[in-house]
Amino acid sequence: MKLLEQKIINDGIALEGNILKVDSFLNHQIDVPFMDKLGKEFSRLFSGLSATKILTVEASGIALSCAAAKYLKLPVLFAKKGNRANIGADVYFAASYSYTHKSEYIMTVSRKYLSSCDKIIIIDDFLAKGNALNGLISISQQAGCEILGIGIAIEKAFQGGGDALRQEGFNLCSLAIVESMDNGDIVFRQ
Amino acid sequence: MKLLEQKIINDGIALEGNILKVDSFLNHQIDVPFMDKLGKEFSRLFSGLSATKILTVEASGIALSCAAAKYLKLPVLFAKKGNRANIGADVYFAASYSYTHKSEYIMTVSRKYLSSCDKIIIIDDFLAKGNALNGLISISQQAGCEILGIGIAIEKAFQGGGDALRQEGFNLCSLAIVESMDNGDIVFRQ
Repeated sequence: MKLLEQKIINDGIALEGNILKVDSFLNHQIDVPFMDKLGKEFSRLFSGLSATKILTVEASGIALSCAAAKYLKLPVLFAKKGNRANIGADVYFAASYSYTHKSEYIMTVSRKYLSSCDKIIIIDDFLAKGNALNGLISISQQAGCEILGIGIAIEKAFQGGGDALRQEGFNLCSLAIVESMDNGDIVFRQ
Repeated sequence: MKLLEQKIINDGIALEGNILKVDSFLNHQIDVPFMDKLGKEFSRLFSGLSATKILTVEASGIALSCAAAKYLKLPVLFAKKGNRANIGADVYFAASYSYTHKSEYIMTVSRKYLSSCDKIIIIDDFLAKGNALNGLISISQQAGCEILGIGIAIEKAFQGGGDALRQEGFNLCSLAIVESMDNGDIVFRQ
């Protein structure tokens, strides 16, 4: 999606350690009309799939998912992050690792809101190694629901998570795929 | 707001320990068209104030803030939650306490995105004792910005946080004010 690539070039900041900061519009400050455009693009990619729900994880996936949900006319369900001490009996859960906080966390989804009747689209802001996404996939599999598609705003292809999921057969659509960002020079996959 | 009161009566669950569960539409699963109506109501309450930004805190405040932002034509800025080990040099921060997780957490906002030039509206899903809100107010004061209004979806008046803020002079608007919920019987303030 050229619009997102251009926004990343204009407003994103490539930092050492493969960090791409887009906190001016995506995951700290939110440019709401811009989110709406990304949501509309997800809707174009995933319409006609008969999905029942969008699944994401707090916090940065929420605005993006709500934007897509508006066009796809679906409810959003966001996994909550916590620690092992707070896992209730009535939830699906998966362990994941946060590179930002350098610690494990547990994501949970209430069993009430996800079941084998659901056909879902998973949406998140970033995909690097795929840690958060694999947690959401695990939760979906525990619920027995069908994953019709995965929508990502920014995939960092050089960290491998996206291509691994494609090889597993997932219908993964990333709006911008960063092939490399060596020396701060952001190159997108064509 | 009658619409929200009715939704709480229909879909909310009053549990022991003053817990009001609204996770079917507000803070786990999100009813996006319903959020849009709440956002429109916030816009009616806060339009004409010349605000520059909406400030909220992850995660449940995000969907609500984006809905209001759409009508108020403002960017959203959400405070991030973390622990003391992750406080960077370039942030405002405040300590708060989570009753859900029974632990202290730190909320942070990048200094880049909040300054004395900003006039903000703070939005959040719940107001009980006011812990999270006081963190956002502290951060706003550190930034030197003006707080034009505070918009809350559900205020639990019997926990006192809302009336304390009104006495301090804040322009606080709650869409539904729960006066009491003894024995699961939810009574709204008229």
